[in-house]
Amino acid sequence: MRILIIGAAGMVGRRLAEKLIADGRLGSERIDTIHAFDVVEAPLVSANGIEIEAQAGNIANSQTVEGLIAQKPDVVFHLAAIVSGEAEVEFEKGYDINMDGTRHLLEAIRHIGAGYRPRLVFTSSIAVFGAPFPEKIDDHFFRAPLTSYGTQKAIGELLLADYTRKGFVDGIGIRLPTIVVRPGKPNKAASGFFSGIIREPLAGLDAILPVADDVRHWVASPDAAVHFLLHAGTMDLAQLGDRRSLTMPGLSVTIAEMIEALGRVAGNEAVAHIKRQHDPQIAAIVDGWPRDFNAQRAEEAGFKADQDFDAIIRAHLADEEARKAKS
Amino acid sequence: MRILIIGAAGMVGRRLAEKLIADGRLGSERIDTIHAFDVVEAPLVSANGIEIEAQAGNIANSQTVEGLIAQKPDVVFHLAAIVSGEAEVEFEKGYDINMDGTRHLLEAIRHIGAGYRPRLVFTSSIAVFGAPFPEKIDDHFFRAPLTSYGTQKAIGELLLADYTRKGFVDGIGIRLPTIVVRPGKPNKAASGFFSGIIREPLAGLDAILPVADDVRHWVASPDAAVHFLLHAGTMDLAQLGDRRSLTMPGLSVTIAEMIEALGRVAGNEAVAHIKRQHDPQIAAIVDGWPRDFNAQRAEEAGFKADQDFDAIIRAHLADEEARKAKS
Repeated sequence: MRILIIGAAGMVGRRLAEKLIADGRLGSERIDTIHAFDVVEAPLVSANGIEIEAQAGNIANSQTVEGLIAQKPDVVFHLAAIVSGEAEVEFEKGYDINMDGTRHLLEAIRHIGAGYRPRLVFTSSIAVFGAPFPEKIDDHFFRAPLTSYGTQKAIGELLLADYTRKGFVDGIGIRLPTIVVRPGKPNKAASGFFSGIIREPLAGLDAILPVADDVRHWVASPDAAVHFLLHAGTMDLAQLGDRRSLTMPGLSVTIAEMIEALGRVAGNEAVAHIKRQHDPQIAAIVDGWPRDFNAQRAEEAGFKADQDFDAIIRAHLADEEARKAKS
Repeated sequence: MRILIIGAAGMVGRRLAEKLIADGRLGSERIDTIHAFDVVEAPLVSANGIEIEAQAGNIANSQTVEGLIAQKPDVVFHLAAIVSGEAEVEFEKGYDINMDGTRHLLEAIRHIGAGYRPRLVFTSSIAVFGAPFPEKIDDHFFRAPLTSYGTQKAIGELLLADYTRKGFVDGIGIRLPTIVVRPGKPNKAASGFFSGIIREPLAGLDAILPVADDVRHWVASPDAAVHFLLHAGTMDLAQLGDRRSLTMPGLSVTIAEMIEALGRVAGNEAVAHIKRQHDPQIAAIVDGWPRDFNAQRAEEAGFKADQDFDAIIRAHLADEEARKAKS
């Protein structure tokens, strides 16, 4: 089979590609080719006889997208996006990539016709929901995004459902929780500290905690994100009916609970690296974010949350050790 | 002030234009010009010193829309749409007009810049909601449209909210109930019989009732629709916060209640013109439609439902008499 990954150079996209290459198959089907698309060429290494076609380009260009689909991939993983903060500042760029890019993809698939109806896994976001929230947000809560990014993702979900209903594509939208622990360097995303307060202390570095200890958030590990994508790429979607977007199961944890888990896994010396330095701006942004979800639909469809936050930290440590062993 | 009506030749658009011309003002402000746009020229007659600019064109053309906005209307009423049945059959046409047309409008407004921030009244639809429904649907119920038309309107609501949040426009989306009694000839819309079983008997003609007497639906009169538009064009929208789309207050009535009202207003001879002839196809379509809403948000914002179904029938009779007196 042929798989197209749009956004293959990103943290989750690359991890997905590497997992597919290592497995050699998606579900029960052998993979022949992985077409890895992103704004830069994804640095993937071929294995298991899988051909890697790495391509750089921009999905805001409809002809580029038509070129991707002309080769009729069996499964498309669409992970490309201008992230929340950037889409808020660069209004046109956000709409060009996040809304038009997704529409170009759906249109390119529709235009192939002749019974071509690939599986399309669209990564959406819990940013489709906006405050005020109920205590737990379920899949049927009103999408009232408070960012352009959330608006673009909500529009993507609507288009995906309509193109699926019309039989042009077999689509599923999965709303990923905030991914923790993100590897690599600290970034300036408002959510960056959720990873930073774990990643940095584990590496013996200080990390700043800009919000209160009782802040609650919805998180999943990078491994869980890859599991969500693989399951979405193989499961029978008919059971979802017309409502094709699902909030993925995460863990609803407070900062205090995250820090306790860090202490259990890595001891008090790790915890001592967390420096409390309140940032009213970040605190205000985070205050508008959802805290907890009812992901029952996704759970019933076979998507599994991480076991607990201790397991998330341990998996990150194992990843880091494997990375060091390789380099 | 200058008012732009997009969809000015339609039943509601034309009625709105005629009301504005008769009043000479919108709220407390004198109207200088009404720019009446539609696919055909709206047959409006000037009065009260108001200049009428009737123009025919297509909002799927972005340059046409830029031309409309270049004259910086103070208030824009956007009523143009490919209706539900046609948008379902003509997939591209529906997206071109209902989604891209609305986006062209928002983009044209954004591109003027320099503090230009007109009031935009967007007519949405209860088709943004899809079964299964709760007993009463409130404004925060999940938008899961089951038609392309409903999808396009839901996307319009999302764009309107985002462009409003970013300060480009002062937008409000109003979801109109099914308008009853529509004047004129019977049409082939699945909802046509809701008007037909009142309008035809009042004119001494037979009308076919294709569904059961216990079918419940959400309706408002043409006068109520004009009141909703005028109120949306003048009210202070800040009270709505970021959630700028509202289900307008309607009457939730059964066919049996509609027929009882017809009997009270026009007697048994009118009722005898209703011929029950079950149509399983129409019955199935209507079965998927919402029946009842909680329009509390709109009511609190000053939107008023019709008094009762008797009043809707009496208003239709008065309209017909006025029409005959004129011709």
